[in-house]
Amino acid sequence: MPPTYPRLSSHLEQTNTDGYLIEADGDDSNQYYLSGYHAPDDFVTLYADGDVSLLVSGLEYTRAKADSDTDAVRQLSEFDYWEKAEKMDPRNARKLVTADFLADAGIESVTVPASFPTSTADVLRDQGIDVVWDEEYVLTAVRAVKSEREIAHIEETQRANEEAMAVAEDLLERAAVEDGVLHLDNEVLTSEAVRERIEIALLEQECGMSDCIVASGAAAARGHDSGSGPLEANAPIIIDIFPRHKRTRYFADMTRTFVKGEPSDRIEEWYELAHEAYEAALATLQAGVSGEAVDDAVCDVFEAEGYPTLRTDRSTTDGFNHSTGHGVGLDVHEAPHLAQQGEELEAGHVVTVEPGLYEQGTGGVRIEDLLVVTDDGYENLTEYPTDLRVV
Amino acid sequence: MPPTYPRLSSHLEQTNTDGYLIEADGDDSNQYYLSGYHAPDDFVTLYADGDVSLLVSGLEYTRAKADSDTDAVRQLSEFDYWEKAEKMDPRNARKLVTADFLADAGIESVTVPASFPTSTADVLRDQGIDVVWDEEYVLTAVRAVKSEREIAHIEETQRANEEAMAVAEDLLERAAVEDGVLHLDNEVLTSEAVRERIEIALLEQECGMSDCIVASGAAAARGHDSGSGPLEANAPIIIDIFPRHKRTRYFADMTRTFVKGEPSDRIEEWYELAHEAYEAALATLQAGVSGEAVDDAVCDVFEAEGYPTLRTDRSTTDGFNHSTGHGVGLDVHEAPHLAQQGEELEAGHVVTVEPGLYEQGTGGVRIEDLLVVTDDGYENLTEYPTDLRVV
Repeated sequence: MPPTYPRLSSHLEQTNTDGYLIEADGDDSNQYYLSGYHAPDDFVTLYADGDVSLLVSGLEYTRAKADSDTDAVRQLSEFDYWEKAEKMDPRNARKLVTADFLADAGIESVTVPASFPTSTADVLRDQGIDVVWDEEYVLTAVRAVKSEREIAHIEETQRANEEAMAVAEDLLERAAVEDGVLHLDNEVLTSEAVRERIEIALLEQECGMSDCIVASGAAAARGHDSGSGPLEANAPIIIDIFPRHKRTRYFADMTRTFVKGEPSDRIEEWYELAHEAYEAALATLQAGVSGEAVDDAVCDVFEAEGYPTLRTDRSTTDGFNHSTGHGVGLDVHEAPHLAQQGEELEAGHVVTVEPGLYEQGTGGVRIEDLLVVTDDGYENLTEYPTDLRVV
Repeated sequence: MPPTYPRLSSHLEQTNTDGYLIEADGDDSNQYYLSGYHAPDDFVTLYADGDVSLLVSGLEYTRAKADSDTDAVRQLSEFDYWEKAEKMDPRNARKLVTADFLADAGIESVTVPASFPTSTADVLRDQGIDVVWDEEYVLTAVRAVKSEREIAHIEETQRANEEAMAVAEDLLERAAVEDGVLHLDNEVLTSEAVRERIEIALLEQECGMSDCIVASGAAAARGHDSGSGPLEANAPIIIDIFPRHKRTRYFADMTRTFVKGEPSDRIEEWYELAHEAYEAALATLQAGVSGEAVDDAVCDVFEAEGYPTLRTDRSTTDGFNHSTGHGVGLDVHEAPHLAQQGEELEAGHVVTVEPGLYEQGTGGVRIEDLLVVTDDGYENLTEYPTDLRVV
């Protein structure tokens, strides 16, 4: 029984369009969400009158029938694809087939996601179909509210994440310190080496990662720096892992901060403050509260101790230089936003809470858990100690 | 010194547009190709008057300046992004900033790739900018012709691929046969287990993979089936690996067929024929020849022995049920197409040649190498024995 999407249906009514149309490959999260089908090549998903239907190539037809959430699967050849493809570029022929597929379903107007290809939109418009892009990002809002099945998937990925974090912690623990940097098995222990071991640990649990952060020293203060080279002793090492399960395609996300050796008083102070901010966020988190209110709770803690935040200075690179959190699901960054201007939270939102403190040139600390918003608070999907991990 | 793209420039002249505009994240191959910049979040790349310029968020600015192929990097805040973002959804504010960025560069009309987001196209049009999508896929054609540096990157990935294939071959070789299936270390050897070892071998060489095929028995005949469960003895096992290098982002692609135990006479015949087709393709391959002519050479071999091909029956699932090959680069499937209607080959095209024979319910065999098209033939980037690997 395929899921139905009342919020999507009422959006279509409000915007007076006949259907919601996606064209993308199965890696696109909107497409996978609505179709339940993952494919390497482009296909089309239509949501109309509460039902999902697909338009796929002949190559995909049998598998799409078997694997997708719907029985309503049509193939290109039903709409004279081959005849069209002899007269023009086959990629363009597919767009005309999409127009015929819509006409056949009695669809005269569609809402499309912001990312919908301009090429197809223009061809459909030429064929007399009204194409309106989704300025309210309604499908993003629908996807943000997770079902129990989705939450179970995310939790499964977070379990794998914790295993990988434990593998990383074990490496740091077994390392020795020489000349201020970590060594293991008579070699310098680098960010790259730890990252490789994390990825292997994830693989062994059917998870993949495109990247992860293992950053010590100054690199830990640069948001988009994954870290490289020797890991420093007596200084914070931020490990931020955001794996995706290969079977379910759901992400998880977690960060811990480690020190090999002796943390300085300053780092211990930073970490205590980050932990206080983390607790303030959790105390605020519940359905009906805005993402901005949770971010405010975190900013309050840091600002009270004199640290800049994006709320006081939107271009600061020191202090709390990012927002409190983001939704996690089929994308690693999705709605809602625990940030200034962040939207109202709903039960079933799965979000990170990840306060941190940084100083450019020195380093930084961060704690990140993954939680489900509930009517009266939250459920924490993360089972890993939240203290500064001194190893 | 950033590269220039004469073919792109002359296309802009022909279509009478001022620039080629991309909006996507750095995972988009067109965007990465033109900008030289890889980022998780969306940004904008403009090619105009032979120069590339970027529009990025404040978060990306420093790294984009350092890592991209151009010094012409602008940031959102230069175009009143924050003022706009207070009045509307920040995602929509970015689209208005893009319009201002174009106006500032004196751009009144742009060509965009087929995948360009409809949302941004519509906002730009509202702002008076003419947006035309690239019906000739010119950037795809530009990307298909590889520079020496790109060929070296692809070759590097193929070396890692060969290491991974050797790891897989070693597993099959060390396996024992019990009850018709492979066993290793007292466990049944499955597709999944071999796939995991391949992925680890790739990781150890800085390569990743999203999937790979390890398929025996009937699964080997189904094009999009990666294989699962116990590997069968005395039957062909198709291993098709298409890794991507994490540093350079270039793919490679190779397939070999293995038999643990005794291949039947029929499988040996299939393989010999596939190898003959492979040699016929290589004998045809050179600049100036069409992709269709190479596919014809392969189809001739199979059809002469009475096997169906897509040329004789476009919906066949038995026989040679796919086309001869495809380009490989920043995407694993890209131009040119060694297929019916395939375009003329140019020196610098990097293509697979991958003939195979299949029978639904039984299995299949395939050989796949990766080659550079040259003026008088080809250079083979693959160094792995092409015989049926009986182990």
